[in-house]
Amino acid sequence: MKIIKYPTEAERAEILRRPAIDTHSLYEAVGRIIERVRSKGDVALRRYAHEFDGVEFEDFAVSELEFDDAERSVSKELKDAIAIAKANIEKFHVAEKPEPYRVETTPGVTCWKKWLPIERVGIYIPAGSAPLFSTVLMLAIPARLAGCREIVMCSPPQPDGKVNAATLYAAKVCGISKVFKIGGAQAIAALGCGTETVPQVYKIFGPGNQYVTEAKLQVMRWGVAIDMPAGPSEVAVFADETAVPSFVAADLLSQAEHGADSQVILVSTSIDLITESLSEIERQVSKLSRKEIAQKALANSTAVLVASVQDGLDLLNEYAPEHLIIACEKTEQLAEKITNAGSVFLGNFSCESAGDYASGTNHTLPTNGSARAFSGVSVLSFMKSITYQSLTKDGIAKLGPTIETLATAEGLDAHRAAVSIRREWIGA
Amino acid sequence: MKIIKYPTEAERAEILRRPAIDTHSLYEAVGRIIERVRSKGDVALRRYAHEFDGVEFEDFAVSELEFDDAERSVSKELKDAIAIAKANIEKFHVAEKPEPYRVETTPGVTCWKKWLPIERVGIYIPAGSAPLFSTVLMLAIPARLAGCREIVMCSPPQPDGKVNAATLYAAKVCGISKVFKIGGAQAIAALGCGTETVPQVYKIFGPGNQYVTEAKLQVMRWGVAIDMPAGPSEVAVFADETAVPSFVAADLLSQAEHGADSQVILVSTSIDLITESLSEIERQVSKLSRKEIAQKALANSTAVLVASVQDGLDLLNEYAPEHLIIACEKTEQLAEKITNAGSVFLGNFSCESAGDYASGTNHTLPTNGSARAFSGVSVLSFMKSITYQSLTKDGIAKLGPTIETLATAEGLDAHRAAVSIRREWIGA
Repeated sequence: MKIIKYPTEAERAEILRRPAIDTHSLYEAVGRIIERVRSKGDVALRRYAHEFDGVEFEDFAVSELEFDDAERSVSKELKDAIAIAKANIEKFHVAEKPEPYRVETTPGVTCWKKWLPIERVGIYIPAGSAPLFSTVLMLAIPARLAGCREIVMCSPPQPDGKVNAATLYAAKVCGISKVFKIGGAQAIAALGCGTETVPQVYKIFGPGNQYVTEAKLQVMRWGVAIDMPAGPSEVAVFADETAVPSFVAADLLSQAEHGADSQVILVSTSIDLITESLSEIERQVSKLSRKEIAQKALANSTAVLVASVQDGLDLLNEYAPEHLIIACEKTEQLAEKITNAGSVFLGNFSCESAGDYASGTNHTLPTNGSARAFSGVSVLSFMKSITYQSLTKDGIAKLGPTIETLATAEGLDAHRAAVSIRREWIGA
Repeated sequence: MKIIKYPTEAERAEILRRPAIDTHSLYEAVGRIIERVRSKGDVALRRYAHEFDGVEFEDFAVSELEFDDAERSVSKELKDAIAIAKANIEKFHVAEKPEPYRVETTPGVTCWKKWLPIERVGIYIPAGSAPLFSTVLMLAIPARLAGCREIVMCSPPQPDGKVNAATLYAAKVCGISKVFKIGGAQAIAALGCGTETVPQVYKIFGPGNQYVTEAKLQVMRWGVAIDMPAGPSEVAVFADETAVPSFVAADLLSQAEHGADSQVILVSTSIDLITESLSEIERQVSKLSRKEIAQKALANSTAVLVASVQDGLDLLNEYAPEHLIIACEKTEQLAEKITNAGSVFLGNFSCESAGDYASGTNHTLPTNGSARAFSGVSVLSFMKSITYQSLTKDGIAKLGPTIETLATAEGLDAHRAAVSIRREWIGA
């Protein structure tokens, strides 16, 4: 990790910069995959399974038997842990119930709003360097709580042609029975367009590499919604001299092990905390199974010494990290001043991995600075709202002239006429 | 309007089909505009103002003087109508206040969630065939209620180099002072990337033609959020023999006058209602100033006779119209059965133009079938949520083993270690 002390404007811009991707070449490559899945359906999916995953399929659907095998192969200990995580995620997510509301805006003009589940949703679970069964919980639980009628899951097949056992078990305990062994951009295309086997869905959720993200952006052109454009995972740690260097190091490493492109930032008012944490990283990294990945990520990472707590907050709010750990005195006060972040972890005992798995918050969070405008996944992400209005005769008599004036000013005659014809009819 | 009686499966599919756009040629053309604005900033904007709008600019910003001129040129009657619409829109929108909530999911593990305004938002107001000052109200009012710190508006210049007076007046009464005379894809690029003059924003709202929509989709690649991908405007009318044919005709025409690509559908259980409404359309259309546009839209439109109310509901829910007028007996009961729509208008006196201008609901709604997954604009659209978690020593002691098991099963050592090091430290 590079240390930057009291960054200049240019250094600050450098810290805030996110890695760029060559979207143009991605656009072409992914566009071809989508077009082929759209026009050839299952035939294209079989071809990609052979080409990208090295497996031959007649049927992509995970069978009852495969679900049962998966369940048998998952240990009792893991099952218990999944049950605890599931209970916590449910407890936190169920508490956000969007309420309908109704307002009479003008006598005789009543407007209301109501939230409904999105009827068909798709969940994509990657299986690249790690089988992310925890993401099944994070997406399927709010989908169930929202009341989605059909939840379709896709996950890439392993070389043996199966989906990871823990992933399937997690799907089963969340009540998902439609799981397809399809990965990458072709899975997003299948969910977005539908094929003979895979049902078309209205919104697609889940992380993935840049092909998956590009495919999600492309299917938006047909009115398919997506959770968010996902980039490499990130953590920022804001620590002062009350933080524990070995904890800070462990937290930075737990993000760094995700991938060589992981974004890791340490911001502190204490140079001692920075140097001690960096020494701790050296000590801890050698013990990790994924140490090469973590080391690559750390090589591109920065520790920033700031002149004041306010400077640190300004930098972090502008950076808008996916995960933000605040290991400082008065954490609650500082957390109040955070305006842009996906999820915030307060104090020395709130490590990011708690939120990644089991605290109850969602781990599908906005990356790449998009926390400035996007929220993490919640029950609301699986719902949409509809507004309603009902005007009585009195309502249109009272509000009609206003509507007529506004429509006339916009040059929209027929809009005005739709009101006038009603006012004439009732003699208003 | 074509009449389809008791549609076959093939006819049904035809009714449900939305117009397709050639996204590939759009991608290239819009990509070039964005790239030029990104690399050349204001210079590119000046060039496009000359090329597309036929105006020469030194400064794009609307001046104090221009705001004052606009205010003087708007009639007292229009000002009063804008005031009434604004009051209704505020009354309805302010009622949706997302509440923070907090849950202790495990003893010592507390999670909470809070909504915050998106700090900088951009609003695009088109000015093609009609000056849409009503859209200023529909976007600026919820932005203000959400508490957005910076609201930047772009609208194309008229041939005289000014922005439409009513549009500027509406901006002023909503407290928007940063308005730029920029239109089309270049406006979206300026808001998405920022230039010397135009501040970069985190989320872009507003309707527009297919270039604008494509530009919105492309800026999402850099983590900029958008309200929704907008397509041609739509209305579906569900009417039975209790409906008034002249009202039905007026409502269909008020959508048809928007543009030749407007989508208009009449669904009814009564062939008499259909034929009478179509005759009424013939009578009414000749009086409209935009009759050529309306006639073109109607030429592509369909009236569908359905065998039962349930058949009608099924068709409409699958179609997912932007606007749905229910002019039937027992409207409230039928409205309860609508699962996909942007905004619903109940009864004979609730014309679409009421919601377009002044009932209080938002008129920025999902089109093109995207109401299956997208919601109309609301205060929430201008906010994002952050989740928080705080674990005490007891919390990590209790939940720690679960997190360790899950992290181990995902092969993420460092995630496990971040917990283990804390448990060792506290001797748990």
